[in-house]
Amino acid sequence: MESTSDTKTQAKLPSGFLYSGVTAGIKESGNSDLALISCPNGGRAGGAFTQNKFPATSVLYDKALCPLEDFRAMVVNSGNANAATGAQGEANNLSMAAAVAGELKCAAELVLTGSTGIIGQQLPIEKITRAIPQLVTSLQADPTPASVAILTTDLTPKVAQGSIDFAGNQYQTYGMTKGSGMIHPNMATMLGYVMTDAPLPKDINQLTKDLAEKSFNCISVDGDTSTNDSFFVITSNKEFCPPEFESLLFDSLLQVSQDLAKQIAADGEGAKHLIHLEISEAKDMVQAQDVLKAVLTSPLVKTAIHGQDPNWGRLMMAVGNGLSGEVSNPPISISICGVDVFKSGEPMTFDAKDLSTKMAAFDVVITVALAQGTTSLLGWGCDLSREYITINADYTT
Amino acid sequence: MESTSDTKTQAKLPSGFLYSGVTAGIKESGNSDLALISCPNGGRAGGAFTQNKFPATSVLYDKALCPLEDFRAMVVNSGNANAATGAQGEANNLSMAAAVAGELKCAAELVLTGSTGIIGQQLPIEKITRAIPQLVTSLQADPTPASVAILTTDLTPKVAQGSIDFAGNQYQTYGMTKGSGMIHPNMATMLGYVMTDAPLPKDINQLTKDLAEKSFNCISVDGDTSTNDSFFVITSNKEFCPPEFESLLFDSLLQVSQDLAKQIAADGEGAKHLIHLEISEAKDMVQAQDVLKAVLTSPLVKTAIHGQDPNWGRLMMAVGNGLSGEVSNPPISISICGVDVFKSGEPMTFDAKDLSTKMAAFDVVITVALAQGTTSLLGWGCDLSREYITINADYTT
Repeated sequence: MESTSDTKTQAKLPSGFLYSGVTAGIKESGNSDLALISCPNGGRAGGAFTQNKFPATSVLYDKALCPLEDFRAMVVNSGNANAATGAQGEANNLSMAAAVAGELKCAAELVLTGSTGIIGQQLPIEKITRAIPQLVTSLQADPTPASVAILTTDLTPKVAQGSIDFAGNQYQTYGMTKGSGMIHPNMATMLGYVMTDAPLPKDINQLTKDLAEKSFNCISVDGDTSTNDSFFVITSNKEFCPPEFESLLFDSLLQVSQDLAKQIAADGEGAKHLIHLEISEAKDMVQAQDVLKAVLTSPLVKTAIHGQDPNWGRLMMAVGNGLSGEVSNPPISISICGVDVFKSGEPMTFDAKDLSTKMAAFDVVITVALAQGTTSLLGWGCDLSREYITINADYTT
Repeated sequence: MESTSDTKTQAKLPSGFLYSGVTAGIKESGNSDLALISCPNGGRAGGAFTQNKFPATSVLYDKALCPLEDFRAMVVNSGNANAATGAQGEANNLSMAAAVAGELKCAAELVLTGSTGIIGQQLPIEKITRAIPQLVTSLQADPTPASVAILTTDLTPKVAQGSIDFAGNQYQTYGMTKGSGMIHPNMATMLGYVMTDAPLPKDINQLTKDLAEKSFNCISVDGDTSTNDSFFVITSNKEFCPPEFESLLFDSLLQVSQDLAKQIAADGEGAKHLIHLEISEAKDMVQAQDVLKAVLTSPLVKTAIHGQDPNWGRLMMAVGNGLSGEVSNPPISISICGVDVFKSGEPMTFDAKDLSTKMAAFDVVITVALAQGTTSLLGWGCDLSREYITINADYTT
């Protein structure tokens, strides 16, 4: 798997954060399953959340608290989604936050929560509260144990870093995420956290939503939106960002967010290919998003990529399902791995065998020009393999 | 596979139709690939078509001709979709219709066409026109060769029959369809034909659409809507149906249409289970359709069914993705194979091992009550298996 992130460069982490990850015993596997991101001197946090109509307990809790202007900590358990767990689930979520707050000696409402895993089972809250003292005492500058403890079926931790210079200062950004199955445009990360020490705009929730829109909402693994999807931007810097810095800052945070999103798509359950999809010439952003979603979620497209089959007919079919409005047979253009296979509404002659060989690469770039306007959008997805079925037909933690 | 159809009862076919199927050589496999449905004394035909924005040549051609008040024949090729084939594709489609019309000695615009198979390749029109004289001379009362010649990756022919008594007369109905992959609510059959000798309402296109809405539009195999999906209702009886007969007639035609649709879902590529999904307590039909679609297309639900996993969390997640409007954690109820797993918003205690054993059956019945209103809708889908990937990662005709 390729990524622009460099996990070795941990010298330049954002200041003001501590991290830890421990094994509370939630997962049957015995892997670590409890993570903490702490901001000892306080910070600011914005959130963007799933649109699923059965939001998990942690989603409802965080949604009510964000924007959080005196953020102290984020505690995340993996292995159990704490979704569809009713009043007991709410009480358990509060207990988890309160236990961390107790150790950190702050108010419980300054601690956000996150959960990911199986739906409909109560959290083993005793195991969690028992592990929290150790979770807090093991807080350290290295975020690696935390980035591992948030994972479920992910094959690899997913982190990214960036830095930005402004007015003589250098600011650092570090992000971690977990994904795998159940990933889809419409608040698409399962859990994503971007930490920075840069001053951020006043409306930190809006910033978080805008970043999600162009990163996590542009990926699809299997078209399913989870009950728990949450994305947070947290800064240890309580100052507000000067207006002239906003655009530069957004681009820098977006780069880290897109890097994380791409890593989720690349590590989709059973994925053998990362699909880079570029939609251009859309009428507007909604049309671009609709087509992006239709192509990246099409099982017939995803299996064709898996089979290294330059089957542009399936791409056209999927584009035709996503295109809204009164349009029939528009003169679209499609390229696969740099080869024009369909241009201005006409099939092109190309060497299918040679193109199939090109499609053996991990990264498969597909461009679709819609001939409807001037809006462009990038997105990422993965192929559909037998392993996806194996992983999901018999899922345990 | 179970079905309510009885392909042996061919004594009671609708009068006024002849059928044939031959091998023109379109498919590499050498299987039959050219079918004809003929109505020698003329009939009436209504059509309902794909909403894909890249409709195949035959779809545009048929759409312009339907309702066809002096229907003579329907010629269908399999192995080639004649989609994205431009002006040459249009000319080939017209040649196919004209060749049949020439043999039948009728005007070309009384002959409808259908195509299914690979997108973006020109029809081997010489092979087709060469085979048409034999196609016409082999016309006969038995529809079996025609029902076989329309298939692509289908494992079995799909036919259904029914009869209806009214005012001392008995009328017969016979339907054939082909499906397999690329099947999705929103005009969902690849190709479907229902023939009857009953008098039909004046607006035969509307009747066809209404039947599709409650049958083929309620099934999903892989969520992809093809460029070629078409459904026709054809009667050899040119009289109009008396108003008092309409409801009885609709129910009888719907039974045959639903039977065909269910057979498509049951024969979804690689399918090991037929999912019967009953949505109830929806606010309205649109909400019921949205939830039906979200559940039947969810890869996580489909793989859970494949793994005989009574994972109601995934069902809830999929329902939550399909539910529109301002609703959060509604008190829905879910049952699997008759076992209540979630009731009025609360998880139920049940024997998961025992339920998993029940889910080994081919037919898996799932009910979802939305607690939003009083509208119900039935739909059918299939599980997602490794074989689906195998079939679609390396598809040839």
